[in-house]
Amino acid sequence: MQALLELDPAERSALLGSWRERDPALRAAVVPLGELEVLAPIPTPRRNVIAVGANYREHADESPYSPGLPDRPIFFTKATTAVTGPGPVAVDPGQTARVDWEVELGVVVGTRARRLSPAAASEAVFGFLTANDLSARDQQHGRPEGQWFLGKSLDGFCPLGPWLVTADEVGDPQALELSLSVNGTVKQDSSTAHMVFSVVELLVELSRFMTLLPGDIVLTGTPAGVGDARTPPEYLADGDVVDAEVEGLGRLRTTIVMATEVEEA
Amino acid sequence: MQALLELDPAERSALLGSWRERDPALRAAVVPLGELEVLAPIPTPRRNVIAVGANYREHADESPYSPGLPDRPIFFTKATTAVTGPGPVAVDPGQTARVDWEVELGVVVGTRARRLSPAAASEAVFGFLTANDLSARDQQHGRPEGQWFLGKSLDGFCPLGPWLVTADEVGDPQALELSLSVNGTVKQDSSTAHMVFSVVELLVELSRFMTLLPGDIVLTGTPAGVGDARTPPEYLADGDVVDAEVEGLGRLRTTIVMATEVEEA
Repeated sequence: MQALLELDPAERSALLGSWRERDPALRAAVVPLGELEVLAPIPTPRRNVIAVGANYREHADESPYSPGLPDRPIFFTKATTAVTGPGPVAVDPGQTARVDWEVELGVVVGTRARRLSPAAASEAVFGFLTANDLSARDQQHGRPEGQWFLGKSLDGFCPLGPWLVTADEVGDPQALELSLSVNGTVKQDSSTAHMVFSVVELLVELSRFMTLLPGDIVLTGTPAGVGDARTPPEYLADGDVVDAEVEGLGRLRTTIVMATEVEEA
Repeated sequence: MQALLELDPAERSALLGSWRERDPALRAAVVPLGELEVLAPIPTPRRNVIAVGANYREHADESPYSPGLPDRPIFFTKATTAVTGPGPVAVDPGQTARVDWEVELGVVVGTRARRLSPAAASEAVFGFLTANDLSARDQQHGRPEGQWFLGKSLDGFCPLGPWLVTADEVGDPQALELSLSVNGTVKQDSSTAHMVFSVVELLVELSRFMTLLPGDIVLTGTPAGVGDARTPPEYLADGDVVDAEVEGLGRLRTTIVMATEVEEA
């Protein structure tokens, strides 16, 4: 996938187009999904996943920890080792007692990019995926200055997928429903229309300061309804099944496995 | 360098040892340093550089922006595209008017590691390097929640090097002098003895939550004397020459080039 993303965009489009045209031939080689282990679309990103805090209007104010409506995007990163596909996420209760969910629209950058104009930012998007920005709230909020990085970088705390859908098949990224349920109960249900900063605005702002690379993943924030902001607060427990879904991008199912680990070294 | 770092540690040690023993033979192949362009020891890290805020006692309190003495480490990351070697760093005045310096001891991890004990953390260190954690203070402090990530991730804002020195040649990492000068005037002058959290404590804490990888770079914070905390504040300007030095790790010279860029796309 990384090699595909690093192709020249025109070459890549031609390649993807020819794959689609050859559909009948490809179909003969298809393996049933049930026989596969589905990994994250980009299992080992070339650098940290970029994420955005407080980027939905209702979420920016929903808890005592919320920073309020930001006048500029709040960027942070999640470690590459947090990335995982659909499936189990093992959490050691010694690391955190407050695992929380956050459904998000993820953007995959398709080209090296600096100082993007809004039009060029839109062109720079290769595709989109569903993400769950899992957070250890006790680590995130319990540290000086907060801890956007470490509190959201535990191993497995960045489920992505199951699909990476190319931008042409998604249409307007600011008109997608997104929702999340825990054990079948809906906890988040909103639309990307309610983002504070749009996908294009986020890429323009990032690329003002740093060079974006093909394969960069940018998570665009979560809507209201996280566990930490509920009364009483709710956190994920052993066996919980979390379904995150963004319209047209598929449902990302994560199961929580609480397991105490022994010291490794 | 990344391939070397990913070798089994015992295999790597044997290889490094054999290189040293063959010194006379190697000398015949030596190229004079002046004929080389010295890059960062790890020019393209496999993920973001991890960094630590407010990790020297005097620095934690020196400015109105200082968070005070933290009771746990403040971790953040710098983008891989910020990494550069000794030499020029181009800054567009449209990005920031407040470029500041920070000499730091950088640690390079030599093994995949989780849940390190203090003894294992010490063993997990491959080597050390000098770093300059350049910061755009207006971006770092001028945004909601602060902006440890973006304000320190501008292209070129993570000079590293010139050398990566193996741990056996460095000895006690908590007894190294480190200093920084701007145009020959000393601005920072301290010792790694004054860290709030030691190298070992930082690696133990990180590896409690996330898997460390060979080649991970951890910057360990800067001592007092940054420009932003001075009265009046001082920031870097076009042509400024910044020398960052950590005892035994070499001097890292960075020159600032202010250059307005045109819109790229």
